[in-house]
Amino acid sequence: MQQTFRLVIDCPDQVGLVAAVSQFLATQNATITEANHHTDLQTGRFFMRHEISANSVKLTIDSFKQAFAPIAEKFDMNWKIADSHQKQKMVLLASHESHCLMDLLHRWHSGELQCDIPCIIANHPQMKQFADWHNIPFHWVNFKDQPKEQAFAEVERLIEAYQADLTVLARFMQIVPDHLCQKLAGKAINIHHSFLPSFAGAKPYQQAYERGVKLIGATCHYVTSDLDEGPIIEQEVMRISHSDSAADMVRKGKNCEKTALANGVRYHLEDRVIIHHNKTVVFA
Amino acid sequence: MQQTFRLVIDCPDQVGLVAAVSQFLATQNATITEANHHTDLQTGRFFMRHEISANSVKLTIDSFKQAFAPIAEKFDMNWKIADSHQKQKMVLLASHESHCLMDLLHRWHSGELQCDIPCIIANHPQMKQFADWHNIPFHWVNFKDQPKEQAFAEVERLIEAYQADLTVLARFMQIVPDHLCQKLAGKAINIHHSFLPSFAGAKPYQQAYERGVKLIGATCHYVTSDLDEGPIIEQEVMRISHSDSAADMVRKGKNCEKTALANGVRYHLEDRVIIHHNKTVVFA
Amino acid sequence: MQQTFRLVIDCPDQVGLVAAVSQFLATQNATITEANHHTDLQTGRFFMRHEISANSVKLTIDSFKQAFAPIAEKFDMNWKIADSHQKQKMVLLASHESHCLMDLLHRWHSGELQCDIPCIIANHPQMKQFADWHNIPFHWVNFKDQPKEQAFAEVERLIEAYQADLTVLARFMQIVPDHLCQKLAGKAINIHHSFLPSFAGAKPYQQAYERGVKLIGATCHYVTSDLDEGPIIEQEVMRISHSDSAADMVRKGKNCEKTALANGVRYHLEDRVIIHHNKTVVFA
Amino acid sequence: MQQTFRLVIDCPDQVGLVAAVSQFLATQNATITEANHHTDLQTGRFFMRHEISANSVKLTIDSFKQAFAPIAEKFDMNWKIADSHQKQKMVLLASHESHCLMDLLHRWHSGELQCDIPCIIANHPQMKQFADWHNIPFHWVNFKDQPKEQAFAEVERLIEAYQADLTVLARFMQIVPDHLCQKLAGKAINIHHSFLPSFAGAKPYQQAYERGVKLIGATCHYVTSDLDEGPIIEQEVMRISHSDSAADMVRKGKNCEKTALANGVRYHLEDRVIIHHNKTVVFA
Repeated sequence: MQQTFRLVIDCPDQVGLVAAVSQFLATQNATITEANHHTDLQTGRFFMRHEISANSVKLTIDSFKQAFAPIAEKFDMNWKIADSHQKQKMVLLASHESHCLMDLLHRWHSGELQCDIPCIIANHPQMKQFADWHNIPFHWVNFKDQPKEQAFAEVERLIEAYQADLTVLARFMQIVPDHLCQKLAGKAINIHHSFLPSFAGAKPYQQAYERGVKLIGATCHYVTSDLDEGPIIEQEVMRISHSDSAADMVRKGKNCEKTALANGVRYHLEDRVIIHHNKTVVFA
Repeated sequence: MQQTFRLVIDCPDQVGLVAAVSQFLATQNATITEANHHTDLQTGRFFMRHEISANSVKLTIDSFKQAFAPIAEKFDMNWKIADSHQKQKMVLLASHESHCLMDLLHRWHSGELQCDIPCIIANHPQMKQFADWHNIPFHWVNFKDQPKEQAFAEVERLIEAYQADLTVLARFMQIVPDHLCQKLAGKAINIHHSFLPSFAGAKPYQQAYERGVKLIGATCHYVTSDLDEGPIIEQEVMRISHSDSAADMVRKGKNCEKTALANGVRYHLEDRVIIHHNKTVVFA
Repeated sequence: MQQTFRLVIDCPDQVGLVAAVSQFLATQNATITEANHHTDLQTGRFFMRHEISANSVKLTIDSFKQAFAPIAEKFDMNWKIADSHQKQKMVLLASHESHCLMDLLHRWHSGELQCDIPCIIANHPQMKQFADWHNIPFHWVNFKDQPKEQAFAEVERLIEAYQADLTVLARFMQIVPDHLCQKLAGKAINIHHSFLPSFAGAKPYQQAYERGVKLIGATCHYVTSDLDEGPIIEQEVMRISHSDSAADMVRKGKNCEKTALANGVRYHLEDRVIIHHNKTVVFA
Repeated sequence: MQQTFRLVIDCPDQVGLVAAVSQFLATQNATITEANHHTDLQTGRFFMRHEISANSVKLTIDSFKQAFAPIAEKFDMNWKIADSHQKQKMVLLASHESHCLMDLLHRWHSGELQCDIPCIIANHPQMKQFADWHNIPFHWVNFKDQPKEQAFAEVERLIEAYQADLTVLARFMQIVPDHLCQKLAGKAINIHHSFLPSFAGAKPYQQAYERGVKLIGATCHYVTSDLDEGPIIEQEVMRISHSDSAADMVRKGKNCEKTALANGVRYHLEDRVIIHHNKTVVFA
């Protein structure tokens, strides 16, 4: 993988903004390999992402930060610069359904997801086999024989201990407590097995079966205190018919879940997602 | 179009049922061009549709009915036999948005929808141009200058006068009163511009825009007293992104609306839909 | 529709290029409503499209051209600036299949396609009814009772007489002669009823039926001398099964054809397509 | 999993055929949980699949065969009866690309694919890790240091030794010799990484990149002597754009490959596929 720097910006839109940023990049001799712009015409907010060949500039990440700071201040930017070689630490939370966990692990194993996985945390001990095979530390947190509060305190302690940059709930199926949601704001991703906002909450496939919809889906979103209400990153759907039982839907839906979660996680890890209020800009 | 008879049945499932029906058809020398079966394992109900080459049997529709009646009674069937040459009368209700109306009219004009269109009813006078071009009687019902109740009484009178077999709300955008919904139960189809159950009610594209979903859609369903809650016949979705404004969604969504409505209507006209509680079996 | 200027550029990639363009735009006080960049890393070519609020700049199209010319020259740009209020003239070529023609006309009628339609040319006289209803001059060119060469000479004369900016073959079904293809290079769009490169040439649905594919499609592409080999703008597909006859495929495929053609044409009219060798960059 | 018998038939269509089969089933007191019929109107061939609750009939598979044989003979049927509890033996052939292998293994591990996997054969030794983890015998056949003919002789010997009912080429990437294709006719499934018939042969993603298509895909088909020309079971596609490099296409296409292969294999294992000339009837 060629090393790149990713400059991600959002700020109030104004004339001269793009000129200032591109002038800065030209001065640094930066070769831009990918550039995306978006103006939200309703709120007047501007969003920008540049991927820059690291070899082309003489700056390190730190000197880049210093050099760019005055422009950022002038235009009141919310911004970051990320180095593709400084991999994020992604902690995985799993339950007894293994398809999303396995899918993420295999994509990571084959180089599709650029990150480190410092540990897997699960509320079922069987998931250990998947962790072991990938030589990833595994922590079983018992949610049955202790109060949920206590179990989540353990989860929280582990996330901190492993210094997670991103926490992914790969069909974790436990409602994360408020204060932890807030603590992980913008840094925790969930997969819900319906095309939200339809069928939020428990047993979405059963709900879909009962309503008689002709499409089922999955939604990858940031975790917030309001269950299944966070900013949506990615959604997938697939066609079903009267001949599909709720069990068939579960089987078919797994394909949606895996794809939506994998894409959402990859977009996040590649700094392609900017959260704006309760929505996302995704420079896919 | 080759003439066919369509035998559509639903009844409690039991051993010997299919044998009795197919034995009957064989005795009549019926060439079956299409056959579909479905058993709802949860409710134990059985659904069946046969399309039979009319030339192959010596029966008329009426003598067929008489001959089949004892079997239907024995197995407690809900059933009908339809003749593809006896076209249903489809009344169209329209408002100021013309894309669904135009799409249905062109499909009908080109022979894709096998039905008669005895009249178009609209709450906007401009739709007359579309009706005139197709030589279809047009009725403008003024919903602005008279109470809605009175306007709907006129709509109801027209539907009756034209002996509609099917009433299609092609983006009609008026909430049909309860008693009319009940009167038209199973014989009125609506297109809603969202993937229900998400974004029921008014301004679904605006709702979708605000929620930040990554897919928009349309739902074709039977009209019931509960707004946007009727049995779903067909749904379509398409991908959108942050760069789509609510206006872009409207434009894109029209493609979903046209396709979902056209398919739903065609399935109904070809006797491919069986309503079961609040769901549909669609032998597409 | 708010008036916009569209600045579309392609040129060899180099450092300072974006800075120069955005500096120029900032100097003109331009409010950028949409911006898209693409670098083809294989060929080192850069592509850029800006949509600018016309009100925000003090330049007319002509003074803009003059002011921008030195930058364009410096960076060896292939470029144009278009005014959204100077509508392109789109000539439609049609045959006996009317679905694409009708679809384009209705989208144009409802404001989805920003262009003028100076005339419709067809090799079947029945299409006149569609033209008349929209008050568009209609020309029937008889392809049966005269040599094809002569018929195409008439088509060519009409395209010239009406000063077409874009010629759209809406299921025209006649092979355009070489010299005319070359004359209309980059200014003529065709819809082919298969997902090219599969099933080029005649009777693609029959070919698809015989091969037993599980998906059918349509391809919108620029016309070139090599039949069905031109740069692809847009493609659509849909699922089929063994139960679909070749006739069913024709019916289903029409939905793909209409959508792919309408999108391709709209992208072209909004200056969103840049041809690069035999491929397209589409800033959709 | 509830035990079922699957009765799969194809034969010349004629009146009385369905009556005879369903009469037979009724006499055996068979509860039919799923039934599918198809008539190919062009060739006059009839296809039928029944899934029967094994508990409902008093017959064993063997006595069923005996009892049904006279009917089969009378109607000149090509037929089989399969017991869902007699799992097929599926041998997997793999190369260095692991995504399809892993995906099939995980679906099998989680019960989605009802079969036994007696062994994995690969031409790269690294695949052993996947086999080991699932406790499946692994055989590395060296394709580099011996003539291909010899290597394939070893593959053939293994397929025979393990009594494979089905051989799946999970991105095996070696051209199977003619005589082996013929030997495995209807019992070997391949995944090709394009939407066939487009881009048959080597490097389909590179071909797709060069042609500039807007959709890529994957095709699951039976292996025949004509490379990539066998009967298609399932196809998947996904949208791409100019911004996708050939490498991006590889990454995106893997999702299509996994889904198409998994579905195709499942259909085959559940006796849902009937080959008819060079096409398939798939009762999905």
